[in-house]
Amino acid sequence: MIRENFEKNMLELQNKMGEMVNMTVIAMEKAFKALQEQDMVLALAVIEEDSYIDELENEINQMAIWLMAKEQPVARDLRRIVSMIKMSSDIERIADFAVNTAKATIRISKAETILAKTSLVEMKNVSMDMLKKSMTAFIEEDIALAKAVGELDDMVDEKNHQNYVVLTEYLQENPHDTEQAVQLLFINRFVERTADHITNMAESTAYFIKGQLFDLN
Amino acid sequence: MIRENFEKNMLELQNKMGEMVNMTVIAMEKAFKALQEQDMVLALAVIEEDSYIDELENEINQMAIWLMAKEQPVARDLRRIVSMIKMSSDIERIADFAVNTAKATIRISKAETILAKTSLVEMKNVSMDMLKKSMTAFIEEDIALAKAVGELDDMVDEKNHQNYVVLTEYLQENPHDTEQAVQLLFINRFVERTADHITNMAESTAYFIKGQLFDLN
Repeated sequence: MIRENFEKNMLELQNKMGEMVNMTVIAMEKAFKALQEQDMVLALAVIEEDSYIDELENEINQMAIWLMAKEQPVARDLRRIVSMIKMSSDIERIADFAVNTAKATIRISKAETILAKTSLVEMKNVSMDMLKKSMTAFIEEDIALAKAVGELDDMVDEKNHQNYVVLTEYLQENPHDTEQAVQLLFINRFVERTADHITNMAESTAYFIKGQLFDLN
Repeated sequence: MIRENFEKNMLELQNKMGEMVNMTVIAMEKAFKALQEQDMVLALAVIEEDSYIDELENEINQMAIWLMAKEQPVARDLRRIVSMIKMSSDIERIADFAVNTAKATIRISKAETILAKTSLVEMKNVSMDMLKKSMTAFIEEDIALAKAVGELDDMVDEKNHQNYVVLTEYLQENPHDTEQAVQLLFINRFVERTADHITNMAESTAYFIKGQLFDLN
């Protein structure tokens, strides 16, 4: 009965984390839609809605601490809770990158977009795929999937490098359009950092499953 | 006797965190010295030495989990341990920004430096002052000092904005020197993000002391 209650609480905690992942994917998709369509209203919505994601992180932290105090878990159960505390902090940071992308969109404003010269959209798509996979790996305790997430990060790093070259070349040739290229360079970095945080999440999952540390980078 | 042992372990954990802060301050100071003097050997040393800081974070996490499993702390003690897990993750991230600054220094290479046009060095000084204060606030359980850290973050944000303006103007007027200005724009962001992570640390400290959440941003 005690074990049953514990599992029920753990499932609730995990569901909150799943909700946080879903909201973060939506935020990032919206931020990129705003960037592609230069939609300022949508960009502002991403910034406003971030407080719900922050709130979810707080709820996860509070509930995790309450659960540790009440149930005094050890070994795998304890690692599972601590992993959720760490992963929720990574997810919150990714949601912040969606906000940063929305802010960059507002700075770019209505300029004719040079986004198509870059692979930023594909890079975002790969990283959101990684995010969903890292959550599935945690839920299904699938260490092979966690490792696959780490491998996808290499693809993001490669695109990041290509975009850097394209955008700095553009800057040299178009010094009048500095703001847009600089903001896209920042977005390039946000997406790369997003993928790094997702790799951290996959490492937390591997640690929770195996009880040893992994470097999936 | 049990309490005495617990306190001894907690102190050891806290000392490890203090060591991590010291090493991170040293890494950031070295990274900026390398940037100012265009010292590639020093920049490489910052990158290499980061593994010690990563290792310390792992030790803190492992020890925190072991201590929670062994001593089953509740309330304030539990919050104190969880805060250390979260803070060590922030410190690790700040050390990564030192590494990123060293990498940017290598990309800038031997170009004549435009660093003096910016307030990046002062910004770094303020943020390292914040980092030391946030550690003191944690050790001495000083909530007023934790709040003061949050206030210093405003100064960093202001300098960040000024530097952005100076560097994008420079880019417009000097399209031949793109690499350096872009890398300094990134460093500007690393230091701003460093201060944000330190504000998170101050929030973790306030949470551990008071048992309620604070937004010091």
